[in-house]
Amino acid sequence: MPTGTPSPLQRDASQPLAGQLAERYAQRIRERLLLPGARLPSVRDCARQHGVSPHTVVAAYDQLQAAGLVEARRQRGFFVRETRPPATTARAARPASALPRQAPVDATALIRGMFEADAARSPGLGTLPADWLDPTLLQSALRRLSSDTAVQMSYGDPSGDERLRVALSQRLADLGIHAGPAQILTTNGATHALDLLIRTQLQPGDAVLVDDPGWSVIFARLTQAGIRLLPVPRGPAGPDLAVLAALAAQHAPRAYLTVSVLHNPTGHSLDLATAHQLLRLADEHDFLVIEDDSYGFLAPEHLPRLAALDGLRRVVYVGGFSKVLTPAWRVGYLAAAPERLTALTDTKLLDGLTSSPVLERAVALCLEQGRLRRHAQRLRERLGAARQRVAALAARQGFQWATPPDGLFGWLDTGVDTERLAQPLLDAGWLTAPGALFSATRRPGSLMRVNMATSLDPAFWRQLRACVDELQRRPAPG
Amino acid sequence: MPTGTPSPLQRDASQPLAGQLAERYAQRIRERLLLPGARLPSVRDCARQHGVSPHTVVAAYDQLQAAGLVEARRQRGFFVRETRPPATTARAARPASALPRQAPVDATALIRGMFEADAARSPGLGTLPADWLDPTLLQSALRRLSSDTAVQMSYGDPSGDERLRVALSQRLADLGIHAGPAQILTTNGATHALDLLIRTQLQPGDAVLVDDPGWSVIFARLTQAGIRLLPVPRGPAGPDLAVLAALAAQHAPRAYLTVSVLHNPTGHSLDLATAHQLLRLADEHDFLVIEDDSYGFLAPEHLPRLAALDGLRRVVYVGGFSKVLTPAWRVGYLAAAPERLTALTDTKLLDGLTSSPVLERAVALCLEQGRLRRHAQRLRERLGAARQRVAALAARQGFQWATPPDGLFGWLDTGVDTERLAQPLLDAGWLTAPGALFSATRRPGSLMRVNMATSLDPAFWRQLRACVDELQRRPAPG
Repeated sequence: MPTGTPSPLQRDASQPLAGQLAERYAQRIRERLLLPGARLPSVRDCARQHGVSPHTVVAAYDQLQAAGLVEARRQRGFFVRETRPPATTARAARPASALPRQAPVDATALIRGMFEADAARSPGLGTLPADWLDPTLLQSALRRLSSDTAVQMSYGDPSGDERLRVALSQRLADLGIHAGPAQILTTNGATHALDLLIRTQLQPGDAVLVDDPGWSVIFARLTQAGIRLLPVPRGPAGPDLAVLAALAAQHAPRAYLTVSVLHNPTGHSLDLATAHQLLRLADEHDFLVIEDDSYGFLAPEHLPRLAALDGLRRVVYVGGFSKVLTPAWRVGYLAAAPERLTALTDTKLLDGLTSSPVLERAVALCLEQGRLRRHAQRLRERLGAARQRVAALAARQGFQWATPPDGLFGWLDTGVDTERLAQPLLDAGWLTAPGALFSATRRPGSLMRVNMATSLDPAFWRQLRACVDELQRRPAPG
Repeated sequence: MPTGTPSPLQRDASQPLAGQLAERYAQRIRERLLLPGARLPSVRDCARQHGVSPHTVVAAYDQLQAAGLVEARRQRGFFVRETRPPATTARAARPASALPRQAPVDATALIRGMFEADAARSPGLGTLPADWLDPTLLQSALRRLSSDTAVQMSYGDPSGDERLRVALSQRLADLGIHAGPAQILTTNGATHALDLLIRTQLQPGDAVLVDDPGWSVIFARLTQAGIRLLPVPRGPAGPDLAVLAALAAQHAPRAYLTVSVLHNPTGHSLDLATAHQLLRLADEHDFLVIEDDSYGFLAPEHLPRLAALDGLRRVVYVGGFSKVLTPAWRVGYLAAAPERLTALTDTKLLDGLTSSPVLERAVALCLEQGRLRRHAQRLRERLGAARQRVAALAARQGFQWATPPDGLFGWLDTGVDTERLAQPLLDAGWLTAPGALFSATRRPGSLMRVNMATSLDPAFWRQLRACVDELQRRPAPG
């Protein structure tokens, strides 16, 4: 995996420093972490940041210009050029399709950034950093499995490893959700479960209610599938039910896709009264509710889930292990009414046959031993302490939260456009998650998502303060 | 995983024998291994097959009738009832969509059957049976990995584990395909790679050339995506180029999806002259070629690949490890021109973020050590011996092959409709793969796919002879 942005250049490497620096910027441009029109740092700033001479920076920028990635504007500096992604070019000559095929560049740029990020410098990260997870839990499960040839040698059951489904059925019972193993379908992570639901339950042209703010990958995926998004403002108690009811009456949506517990990015959890009213509206307007509980292990078990209230009639429940066990195993699942399972399993079969029975059994071993539950409990305690520390750091620099942080995330109000703010922060080596990325309409705003586990460095908060102050002094562009 | 069809009923189990027998048939009906309209065996035959009394069979059939799964027809016996799958019912009230959403029941029934099958009784199986694979190879890779916390703790690179991509680049070079690691994208098995290509490169309404016969899962997947199939007859040297050229001229297909080497189900491999002409046609009519090399490890390395001739300009190459290493790890990949990779990686990100870096690194370890190559060589030798033995068994019962078997499959001509033949064979405990399942138009025919590694039991060939003779004596229905 490529290293994080701010790691030092290699002085003893075979490639000259200017080449290394150029390659670093070229990669950011390719990954769209630096978007077209963005200004590169001044030669002086860049030289200082990377500890090289201004000559080296000029040579690097020249290479980027020769490669067509940036252009020099007289007296103003170097700017990222507008380049057309090849996929778009290739399709340009084709007749216009009925489906919108909006390129989800922004969402995927954020995710790609997430995979390349140095966690210690990424307050915008969406997961816990690796050093918060429990390697011995993973090791012992894989070791026990390595000699289980029955599991190692077959495709496995298309529904998913039966021992995992039994263990999940018990985990769900702890949350008040009653689902037998036959009501559970395993997937390659929670995102894959959402993808299967989109492919099986929805059609191009359908309207779907979504939380606003919400998780940009899902917005991008729904848009790619030709779905019309109906954003519902998300408050501390849950969705704005008046807006939701009006949208439902007007657009007859097929589904509402929501995170009930420790919502991404706000950290909010649904309260019981809102959950109840929401399900009444779902009954009245006959839409499916897709409940994404990806962050559920980081919350106390008593928080209400829609699937528990509804008894999995009209709610489909989605869960995963990336936030608590490891993102590397790619194990997720969904639980649904029995009559939905056949079609969902068929979609899974056609898109990849089965999901890995080896990793599914490994998760089962972690769940069965009760070790995952204890590990999750420790994580919750550690996160609680981290939230207190982050709150103090933010307060010391004079920042306010939109609402008190909970779980992994805080939703910070910076007072300036966080999309504009992201660029100088990235130049200084900090990867952030501006609020526009969580808006279904890409609306710019002053909010940003802050990861409680990766924003414990006071240097980040000092830099944030400095960048905000700088932006407030400068007039907005255009 | 459920046990294979013909395993004996449990005489000491808590459930009575009639209930066990009823459940067994109910499952076959649910899985559509027994299709609506199919006749259950006579009471006498069923009693003999399962070693139970006729009273037990009558009680079991009564239970099935009470459950609404079968109906009795006077003087004729018990027949599977027509039941509507719930997914179809749920959508029935919706306005007709522009896209065909044909339920791919037959393809998924075959695949579901494949996962539940007892390999020793499944001449229709699509993979090598577990006891042909090498458990020590898998064990040692997983053991070495279990303590690698860097791999165990992160999502991994969205493009796939870099060490695997380096190892794959070398494997491809052995096949004459020159692709750098950056041209490779890993997936959750080869089927997932095909799915990503369908989603990224094709749109509803596009026409796509396919091999006929070919792999039914792909036909089902393409149909589900709203693609028009253009079947091209597949002969021993490759596709019928005259038909292909005519279809290309008439329908302007976007792509041709083909298996060049050890084609499923015929076992044919493309010859060099056909490969060359085919690529000229692809240039002339400007279509993409998707080359599925799932069986490539079971063939000598010198067999020509389209990707080698074309230099991955217009060909996208797809490979996997289910047929040689294990289906349980779900690791596959594609190799393509650099400009195609961004859009394909975005599609992968949106449908499930990353594929498991743990299993990808495990495959890398197998490839790097050269052990996979030696294991594949041993498999090829063992398969060669199996083919000779199967050929002798078939000849002894008077059967002919459409062409000489190669690799894992033979394409057998039984002289009778193999879809009608499948039912009595299944009743006798043998899972077969009738030719109609490999026909893009579901055309019935006298051919069937025979797996060389799972049809070594002379009892199968005797049963096949008996069932063919019986069908030839009976007039066709209707």
